[in-house]
Amino acid sequence: MQPVFQAVTPAIINQLTAIIGAEQISATQADLDQHAHDQGFYPAHAAEVVVWPTTVAQVSQLLALANTQHIPVTAWGAGTSIEANPIPIHGGIVLSLQRMDAIIAIHADDFQVTVQPGIGYKDLNARLARGGLFFAPDPGANASIGGMLANNAAGIRTVRYGATKDNVLRMQVVLADGRVTYVGSRSVKQSSGYDLLHLLVGSEGTLAIITEATLRLFPIAAHISAAVAAFETVAAAIEAVVAVRSSGLEPSALEFLDAGFAQMLSDSAQLGLLPKPTLFMEFQAAHVQTLTHGIETVREICQSLGALDFSATTSAVERKRLWQARNHAYEILVRTYPNKRMFTNDVAVPISSYPALIAFIQGELARNDVLAFLLGHAGDGNIHVLFPCADDAEYAAGQAVNADIVRKALELGGTATGEHGVGLGKARFMALEHGVGLEVMRSVKQALDPHGILNPGKIFPS
Amino acid sequence: MQPVFQAVTPAIINQLTAIIGAEQISATQADLDQHAHDQGFYPAHAAEVVVWPTTVAQVSQLLALANTQHIPVTAWGAGTSIEANPIPIHGGIVLSLQRMDAIIAIHADDFQVTVQPGIGYKDLNARLARGGLFFAPDPGANASIGGMLANNAAGIRTVRYGATKDNVLRMQVVLADGRVTYVGSRSVKQSSGYDLLHLLVGSEGTLAIITEATLRLFPIAAHISAAVAAFETVAAAIEAVVAVRSSGLEPSALEFLDAGFAQMLSDSAQLGLLPKPTLFMEFQAAHVQTLTHGIETVREICQSLGALDFSATTSAVERKRLWQARNHAYEILVRTYPNKRMFTNDVAVPISSYPALIAFIQGELARNDVLAFLLGHAGDGNIHVLFPCADDAEYAAGQAVNADIVRKALELGGTATGEHGVGLGKARFMALEHGVGLEVMRSVKQALDPHGILNPGKIFPS
Repeated sequence: MQPVFQAVTPAIINQLTAIIGAEQISATQADLDQHAHDQGFYPAHAAEVVVWPTTVAQVSQLLALANTQHIPVTAWGAGTSIEANPIPIHGGIVLSLQRMDAIIAIHADDFQVTVQPGIGYKDLNARLARGGLFFAPDPGANASIGGMLANNAAGIRTVRYGATKDNVLRMQVVLADGRVTYVGSRSVKQSSGYDLLHLLVGSEGTLAIITEATLRLFPIAAHISAAVAAFETVAAAIEAVVAVRSSGLEPSALEFLDAGFAQMLSDSAQLGLLPKPTLFMEFQAAHVQTLTHGIETVREICQSLGALDFSATTSAVERKRLWQARNHAYEILVRTYPNKRMFTNDVAVPISSYPALIAFIQGELARNDVLAFLLGHAGDGNIHVLFPCADDAEYAAGQAVNADIVRKALELGGTATGEHGVGLGKARFMALEHGVGLEVMRSVKQALDPHGILNPGKIFPS
Repeated sequence: MQPVFQAVTPAIINQLTAIIGAEQISATQADLDQHAHDQGFYPAHAAEVVVWPTTVAQVSQLLALANTQHIPVTAWGAGTSIEANPIPIHGGIVLSLQRMDAIIAIHADDFQVTVQPGIGYKDLNARLARGGLFFAPDPGANASIGGMLANNAAGIRTVRYGATKDNVLRMQVVLADGRVTYVGSRSVKQSSGYDLLHLLVGSEGTLAIITEATLRLFPIAAHISAAVAAFETVAAAIEAVVAVRSSGLEPSALEFLDAGFAQMLSDSAQLGLLPKPTLFMEFQAAHVQTLTHGIETVREICQSLGALDFSATTSAVERKRLWQARNHAYEILVRTYPNKRMFTNDVAVPISSYPALIAFIQGELARNDVLAFLLGHAGDGNIHVLFPCADDAEYAAGQAVNADIVRKALELGGTATGEHGVGLGKARFMALEHGVGLEVMRSVKQALDPHGILNPGKIFPS
């Protein structure tokens, strides 16, 4: 049953203003437009009003009002998602957490930090670096911590340090009806009732609004090395990925780029790469011997699988150039095809099935003569296929291939989405991926948000 | 509102027998008695019937019947818990998973194994060792995998490898009404809707019955070293724990024993320990240099904090003797006080608050003149205070001190239960620990098990 929503009337605007103050609310077209789209493919849709609360009490009162009045509330972090996760497709209120961006406490002895949700993870890491610590998930664009938690973002360091859900201990959240609670514990161990923390992480703002989070930190490694290996075929590169993972080595990044991406990144950042299927790797260690041993093992693995080129560096400057290029791969592709729009998929499979998945993708793209580029967090079994589309026909062709890829990934024991979340575009795969589990998710949604006001239209197929 | 349950009538027995076969059901007193208590303090309470399904289809049909008839169903693994988690306090059906104990598949390249819930983790590890792999959580007694998942068990390796919830990727579960579904994914990354996997892990059989699980494995380390350090005071030992953890070293075990436990274990297993506050530690590494470096760093830390004695060994035999003694500490204590019954607490705090917690516990025990012994997974900030009780008066005195300890742990940002689960005894602390979160847990319970048939009386205060 679809919820029925009320419009944001002038009377509601007055009530919102009374809660939050005139400086923290806007219904100007410019502000609505700015909060109408993310960085992905999906068409913009404006809310009726944007609010910028600065305290949890305000968030609580805003939600209590919206819940009573049946007005949609969509949380907003930095707008860097690509699955339309924060687009307010049913209008209502955009609740931006941007002005709640404080670092509340650094618990250095516990390797923890407590922050408000609006802070960008890059800004947080710049601050933490002074103490030799960092928050590991690294999705690329300067996502907000709240957005990363809501979408369970991951990125290039997940192969070693886990996704966002593995790096959070406790959150303060506001429920749909305005009740405020903490979930999880700053104790690293907790077996005390239901794990609400992980129920809410990755729920894309459909169950609660995150207003505070205690994150797990790691010490910045004393020794870091980056390596690049190019291969003649995609199959050889992927075989190397599986061999590295199965060797028991723990790279801190293990990324795959197809020949097209290798060339684009190389041209854009003067990396001097061969235009061939390529692996970007990183190793971190407390001791230089461990690092050397890791790099040598990986060199042997790559060379035994016919690597055309293998180079390693401990230079911080070179490393930064490499990872900056990798982090901006999406933007580089967008610039390379200025007249096309991109959509991307995000399937992930167990590592042993990665070669079969990649081979299937290559076959489908060739068979359907669809232009697409591959890059992925290979060490996690995650791949992004990026489809540049000039028109509806190209979009439809890409979508058809994409649907086949998702089905294949599920068949191989994987998932429709490794790290971007469900948002709008993947809702159609949810029944296939979860079966009865999707019914359970609906029961949970109904129990926690009975009026369906929180980010309506996302995750669940309508 | 308390649910109202129906008795297991002869007609119900007939229906159960029709589902499961006469060999897989019993209402004999011996079988009922055997499934009426765990290894903890709580009084026995018998179910009306015990069933041993062998297929998920049987579990599904059993639950569908029980749900329709409003009959309690309490899952049973190995009965090694200590918080009464599997005691069928409302009677009804004990559903033993003991005969579903197969290893379904070892996915060696993925470092994963798929098992049925009835297998003991020690039996599983014996089988996995042939391939050089192991399942890391190590609670001591040969708990079943299903029970470990249900209680989110942890143990001595958690400091390095995480608790059970960190080592599971996917489960097949049967819901209260008999629906069967998978939750989670064999892909190590998944951001696809709500994290039902972690909602169900640790829910103590109150939301669903686990019938299959895919677990994360680790390679058995090439080099392992154990170390023992004794200190004059508890405070010095605890200071060493914090120093080791804050140094960025990653011990694979970091255990604290008070003087009494050190003596008991030493006497029982001829360990030659000083009767002083003692740390047991373990380090694992792929390279011998890393190991040597770790041990030397720890030796320096311990000696700088005035360790009376520090010894390290790489002998597998000596290591085994040490950890076997540690794993049997509870049984050794029980044997030392044959006329007393034990109850234990299980609080955990952020590591920086561990010294304050331990100091508080020592003060409370002294002030109230209560006999108790301390041992704990110190590296995780987890402590067990064991109270030997001869009579109701000693029990009441211990419980009063325990309640103060729990309140202190919560005040320090910790939890009432790090690894034993809530069961019966900790339900009274749930409101204090979770506040509004407990209401959310109740909403989830109501949504997933509306008739309240799954393990009634546990987790939630009545």
